[in-house]
Order: sequence, then structure tokens, then C-alpha cells
Amino acid sequence: MPDPLSDHANLAAALDLAASEAKVYLAGIDDALVRPRTSGPSQDMDLPDEGIGSLAALAELIESADESSTRSAGPRFFHFVMGGGTPAALGADWLASTLDQNAYNWISSPFASRLEQVSVEWLKDLFGLPGEWSGVITTGATMANFASLAAARRWWGLQQGVDIEADGFSGLPPMTILSSGYIHVSALKAIAMLGLGRDRVRRLSRDGAGRIDLDALASVLRERNQEPVVIVANAGDVNTGDFDPLADILAIARRHSAWVHVDGAFGLFAALSPLTRHLVEGLEHADSVAVDGHKWLNVPYDSGYAFVRDASYLAGAFGASASYLGRDARPAFGNLGPEMSRRARSLAVWATLRAYGRSGIRAMVERHVRLAQRVGEQVDAAPDLERLAEVRLNVVCFRFRPPGFPEDRLDDLNRRIGEMVLEDGRVYFGTTEYDGKVAFRPAIVNWRTREGDVDLIVTTVRELGARAIARAGPGLQAKPATEAAGEPEAPAEVAKPQR
Amino acid sequence: MPDPLSDHANLAAALDLAASEAKVYLAGIDDALVRPRTSGPSQDMDLPDEGIGSLAALAELIESADESSTRSAGPRFFHFVMGGGTPAALGADWLASTLDQNAYNWISSPFASRLEQVSVEWLKDLFGLPGEWSGVITTGATMANFASLAAARRWWGLQQGVDIEADGFSGLPPMTILSSGYIHVSALKAIAMLGLGRDRVRRLSRDGAGRIDLDALASVLRERNQEPVVIVANAGDVNTGDFDPLADILAIARRHSAWVHVDGAFGLFAALSPLTRHLVEGLEHADSVAVDGHKWLNVPYDSGYAFVRDASYLAGAFGASASYLGRDARPAFGNLGPEMSRRARSLAVWATLRAYGRSGIRAMVERHVRLAQRVGEQVDAAPDLERLAEVRLNVVCFRFRPPGFPEDRLDDLNRRIGEMVLEDGRVYFGTTEYDGKVAFRPAIVNWRTREGDVDLIVTTVRELGARAIARAGPGLQAKPATEAAGEPEAPAEVAKPQR
Repeated sequence: MPDPLSDHANLAAALDLAASEAKVYLAGIDDALVRPRTSGPSQDMDLPDEGIGSLAALAELIESADESSTRSAGPRFFHFVMGGGTPAALGADWLASTLDQNAYNWISSPFASRLEQVSVEWLKDLFGLPGEWSGVITTGATMANFASLAAARRWWGLQQGVDIEADGFSGLPPMTILSSGYIHVSALKAIAMLGLGRDRVRRLSRDGAGRIDLDALASVLRERNQEPVVIVANAGDVNTGDFDPLADILAIARRHSAWVHVDGAFGLFAALSPLTRHLVEGLEHADSVAVDGHKWLNVPYDSGYAFVRDASYLAGAFGASASYLGRDARPAFGNLGPEMSRRARSLAVWATLRAYGRSGIRAMVERHVRLAQRVGEQVDAAPDLERLAEVRLNVVCFRFRPPGFPEDRLDDLNRRIGEMVLEDGRVYFGTTEYDGKVAFRPAIVNWRTREGDVDLIVTTVRELGARAIARAGPGLQAKPATEAAGEPEAPAEVAKPQR
Repeated sequence: MPDPLSDHANLAAALDLAASEAKVYLAGIDDALVRPRTSGPSQDMDLPDEGIGSLAALAELIESADESSTRSAGPRFFHFVMGGGTPAALGADWLASTLDQNAYNWISSPFASRLEQVSVEWLKDLFGLPGEWSGVITTGATMANFASLAAARRWWGLQQGVDIEADGFSGLPPMTILSSGYIHVSALKAIAMLGLGRDRVRRLSRDGAGRIDLDALASVLRERNQEPVVIVANAGDVNTGDFDPLADILAIARRHSAWVHVDGAFGLFAALSPLTRHLVEGLEHADSVAVDGHKWLNVPYDSGYAFVRDASYLAGAFGASASYLGRDARPAFGNLGPEMSRRARSLAVWATLRAYGRSGIRAMVERHVRLAQRVGEQVDAAPDLERLAEVRLNVVCFRFRPPGFPEDRLDDLNRRIGEMVLEDGRVYFGTTEYDGKVAFRPAIVNWRTREGDVDLIVTTVRELGARAIARAGPGLQAKPATEAAGEPEAPAEVAKPQR
């Protein structure tokens, strides 16, 4: 009977098996098709009574992974804004699993605590945030938005004399939350989890693309002069990579009682380069900032960061037991974020920043910005493609629009091409809706990505677009959507909820 | 300049470095002292502009880990209820880092989605939960409590005609939350994060240990007859491993409009063995259940599970975009739990259950129960030790109480011994307060732990206890607390916030 205790002798072999598979898998990832061949291992849903042992289980897992995993760590996965693991980050993440430190406090792990402390300082430095801010590593931007907005909720409650963590929300008025049409679904999800109501968010947009209406913002804030308000500013719109004008928002907000939160899941990386830094001008005057690491920093999942100007709000929102706070001048990160027991997610962050430094990460970000511009230029040069937005960072928003094709069938056509792209697998990205139009929005964030990889974006869309039209017949009247028999489990629109 | 792209060639070497360190580290962990020699790497807080490359960064990380990590994956770390990684789980977790799948949905990763689907089914089977329940893998029990209680909050709101995720909490009365004195700080933290107010929880305890007062529960529920109420029942009190009587609580709750949530972070593993199953009798009639995997299942951090009877509440609490739900009959786990982008935490769970099966995990749990009883017997046999509670599962709650030692100095003495235990490092556990007394509460959950390891618990406490008394002088009048100069960063009471 395979009892874990009897498995001592297999430990080294299990790690060798995982390591040798990892090396084979990653050695092929630059050239592999992105799409999986099957949609996951078929498994009995009844728990087996007898196990098959660690080496056999890992061999099964490896076989399934080979068939069913998306090559999302590779250079041509442009969906969901997903990075991969650099050598430094991946090696460090293996050590995090191995050491299995609980990054709760300095008793559970001085090592993980110290590395998180250094990592948070380095990250603030990387993004140009003031050193006196507080920060914590979360699982990703959704929970970084959650942590930041929990701090904002605490500030807002205290303005009205209520300690929400202790006494609850009951009796308080609705919290006014303002944003633009760029607000991401993960921020709305965080707002819903906090009990603030996602439908209460007022999107002050001046056009169908979602750009902020600064006059409306000023007007609402004037109306609410006496009332504390939370503003969610967006650094990196998911459809286009566009930015809310932080400096303008902050200039207006500073005349009122407002907490300005910046959701910079991937857009915050604009701060790293003089080429793009203007896009986040004013960032250091915000009250809180959320950003992802498993996107553009290229560390493995899970990795996100919440930064808050005033440390007391993060500590107040997540301190689990007041009597244990303040006994140690050093931060207990399990009391600054949602989780108590926590994976040592700092190891991959620390190793990445130590290995590549500010200049190495900046070089990667600048390369990706140039690659996005390259794709934008290819789109502009193609007679059958239409670019829908400026390429301001690392996302290219465009659609297939062959001359003479009926305007009212373009959405169906592009949706069908989106499905074909996923089936094709040379590149991988989804469709979105931009200003009422179905569009593609490949995002370039993987450290492995080179010119040859991004060049396949335009090539593939044009090729599949021509094929979709040919299939639709000479009259272009056949409904492309009805032909979309493949991949029923793969609605291309699912792109939207993720960046 | 170390740009990640230039680091391609180092990937295999980086993984070999991590793998060889992992094997060396783990080969020595059965015998290593638990305590770290330093309290973390000293690092410049300014982000270096130039990196040192992945291999040098990993070498530094390994050196720091060697000096500063707690040997928490080893067999004598009895603090915080922490397991380690079995060979199957650790190998699988390395693959999770390597494949770096985004476990959001079936587009981002069919592999991770399918493995999570199978894992959740297997876990329900393991714990004896009905197959029709919904479940999701979270980062740990704090977030599993959060997810479960978010589902409860949604149920409670809908009872009053309010969709809290859409419209917010405002205008609703306070939510009545009832529990016993066993409620864990992580459940209180989840309640605070949800905006329900941790101080609103009514602890219906009939004694100083925190045992539930069933008469008071029945009486409060009768009073609130028309009002929906949430009850948090505790399977596995953090101090003693004791259980609230689930069947009794459910029998009372079923006559009223109540949601019964069971926090079974480690206690739920009682369901695995006929020896202990009676402790969670009635579990399958609850409305939601939270449990940890990185504790007794011995998978690496982060791993927790939320199970909810009625799938609609979990989906309603965490669905990020209603228009994308329901297009696929299969669960999109990023819409059933807090995070959207998510590490493929299912791989370690799946591999563990596949490798060891129900019988292997049960054998481990039963061994730990026997080991705890062994320690309990040693405590009972020692003239200078006092057991404070029944050993019902895997925690032994006791204190040093030498004959004739003044009662009013016992708390100081035990607190001092607790500090000495951490400095000593042969075994590692903290102090807690049980029924007003400072006590030890080692918890046995690591797959490597054997009789020789647990025997050191009583040996070490008695030896250090005698030394503390000797130092205190013949009159036993010196204040032990003032001698506690070592480890200023290590308040022993920090045991309490973690299990």
C-alpha cells in the first residue's frame, strides 16, 4: 500500500522525473503549437482506494500534460496577458515548493519574511513608488485589487467613524466608486467580494471605447464634496493597453476627499522605461496600486502585488489578531494581505530582480513594446486588416476587414476567425469587444517572444481570414457562426474576463 | 547585461541547480535542526540596476535558504499545523511551476481545469461530502473560509431580496453570525474581509475552553426565528484539536433558517478514518466546508478547498462576468473562487491522491493520531507535565507544571520554555492560551514524522523546563520573563493566529 512514509526512497527519483520532463518540455516550447491536442485527462471521478505510487502518478501526470497543456509558457501565447517563467524565476519557484516555508511571519519563516520584505522594497523601486509605502505579495491582480480596495474601504469607513473590519458595513451608506469604461472585470470582482456592489461603480466614459470623462468626474466630485469617494484609475486597458490619465484624475481628486486606486495589472510596467513612463505620470501620488507579476515580470503563477501609501490601512484591513501586531517592527506579511498561511511567493520575485536587475527587466519591457509596434505597423500595411486603437504599450487591437465585406457581418467573421486561431495553434489569442466591434487583442509579455513569433499574428489572421471567407462562399452570405462546430468548449469571447 | 531573453541557455542549468539543492536539502531534513541560524538574508533595499544572472542569483538564494529557512518541511516542525510535500506532491508542484498553466478556464488551460475538476471530486469523496456539492481550490483555509462565507453572505442577502455582489451590502441589517469559542482567527479574518464585522460574531461558549453552549444556540435561533443566520462550526480547534458537535448543531439549525459552515482546516481529516469519523458526524448535512491541503494532505503551499452544497451560491459570489457563465457546462474555476488568473494548484492535489489513494492518506492520518496519543501518554506519565485537554485528533495540549512550583508563575515559566524550544530547534512548536493557561500545543501532520520525532517533544520540554527552573534560582522567585533576552523577533504567542 503506498503510504507517503514508505515513499521516502522515491523522493530523489520523483524530483529527477519532474526535472527531466521540465527540461524536455521547455526545450521544445519555442517551436511547439500552443493548442493542446486533448481537452484534459479522462479520469474516473471516484477516488481510487489504492494509490499507484508517486513515480507512476507523476508519469501519468506528465503524459497528460504533454497532450493537454496549453503551451502558455511559450513565446506565441498572446492570450490573457500571460508571461512565462524565466530561468531565475522558475528555479526559485521550485525552491519555494521544496523549502515549503510558510510566509506568514518571522517565526514560521524568517527566510520568506525577509525575502518578501526585500522584494516589496525592490518592486516599489522598480515601479517608482515611494519607499514609505506598504506592500504585500498576493496571488495576482484580482487579489491585489481586493487588498488595495479593502484598504480603501477601511479608509472610507473610518472617515465616517466606523471600523468596518470590526463592526461590519451595516448602517453605512453605499460607497461611491468612480471609474472609466476601462475598469477591468477583476476590479469589479474585488468590489463585489468586498460587499460594495459591482453595479454601484459609475463608469464615467466619454465614448464607446471607455475613455474617461474628466469633466463628469470633476462634476460628480463637486456634488459629493463632503463625502469620501473611491476612484479606480486604470493603467493598461485590457482591450488596447490604453491608460486613464492618472495625473489629471489625481489633480481633480486632490481637491476632494477621494482615495485613488490604480489598477496597473500589466500597465504598471510602463513605469520601467523612459519610452513609456509618461503613461503612468502621477502614479506616486495615488493611494494604492495593484499589479501582476505572473504577467509581465515573467514569474510563475501566483504572483501579484498590492501597494498602499498609508501602511495603517493595509494592516487594519488584514490584521488577524491585534494583540500580535506591533510586537515586531518588521512586517508580518500574513497580517498585511488576505492569506495567513502562504506560499513563499517572494522567492521567484527576488530571484528575478536579482538575476536581471532593473536594466534587464526594462530591456524586456522595451523589446515587447517594440514588438507590439511592429505588429501595429504590419496591421496598418495590410489591406484586409483594420487597427482599432493606438498601440500605446504591448497590446494590438485590430480586426479582419477585407474590402467589400458587409459591415454587418464583420463581427461574426472575426469571431469565427478567433475560434480558428485557437484551433490552429501557431499563435493563441482571443477576441474581445472594442467600441462595439469584435476584435483581436494579442498581448506581448513573454520573455521568450521574438520578432518571428509576433510576425505570425498578422500572417495567421490573414490566412485564416481568407479561408473563412472562401468557406463562406462567393456571396459572403453564409453565416460563419454556424460553421463553428469545432471546440464547443472554447467560446472565444472568454478572452474578456482575463487580461 | 542579463536580459531574460539572453538567459535561454541557462534554463537547464538553473533547473539542475534547483533540483540538486532540493535533493541535498531534503535528504538532510529528517535530522536537521528546525531552527534557522540567521533571521534572513541581509540585502540592500535598493533594487540593483544590473542583475547578476540567473545562476548566481539562485546560488545566493540557496545559500540564504541553507542558513535562514526553517526546516518546516521536516518531521519535527509541530508549529502552526504545517505538513510537508510528499514525493508525489512536490514533483507535481514543480510541474505546476514549469507548465505555468493559468487555471482560470478551459481556454487558458484544459489540463488545469480538468485536473481541478477531478481533484475536487476526489476530495469530496475523500472527506465523505456528497457528489453534487460544488468546490474550488483556494490558497488555504483562510480563503476557503472566505469563499464559503461569501457564498453564505450571498444566500443571506438573497433571503432578503438583495444581490450583494451586484448591489452591495448597504441598507441590509447586520448579519447574525454564531459560533463557539473554538472559532479560528482565519474565519474571523474572512468575516472581516467580507465586511460583516469580526466583532459581530457571537461566541456561544459554555466554558473557558470555548466549548459550544448548545442551549444558548437553540435559544438564539428561537429568538431569530424569522431571520436568516450563519453558524460557523469548528472541526478541529486550534488549541486542542477538539470539535464542535456538528450533528447537534445541525439538528438545532435545521429547524430555523440557518447556513451552517464548517471550518475544518485540519480537523476535516478526521473523516478519513473509522477511528475518528464520529468527530465529524453530520458533516454532509452542512451548507459549506473549508479545509486545508498544505496541512494534513502534505501538499506544498498554497492549497485549500472550499466546498458548498448549492453550486449557485459559489458561482454567484465569484462569477466575474455573467455573460460568460453557462456557455460551458464544465466549471470555470476562476469564476468559482476569489482569483481569476490562478496557479494550477490542482496538480499537487491530483498527484497525491493518485499516488497514495484513499488508503495511503488514511494510513498517514491514523499514524499521526496514534503518535499524538503516544505523546499524550508520555505527558500523563511525566510528573512535571500536565495535559490540559483530551487528545482527540492530532494536537496535544499540555504544560510544564513541576510539583511545588507557584501556580501564579506557571504562565511565565511555560512562555519562557516556549521561547527556549524555538531556540533549541530539535522540535518546534509555540505556546497558546488554553482556558486561561499558557500551554504548548504541538500538532502532528507531517508525512515524515515517526515515533522518534514525537518522543522529542516531551523530552525537550522536560529538559528545557528543568533548565529554566535551575536558572530561576532555588527560591523560584526570579521572573523568568525578564531572562528571555534571546529571539526578540520571536514572540512565542504568535502560535495562535495560525493553526
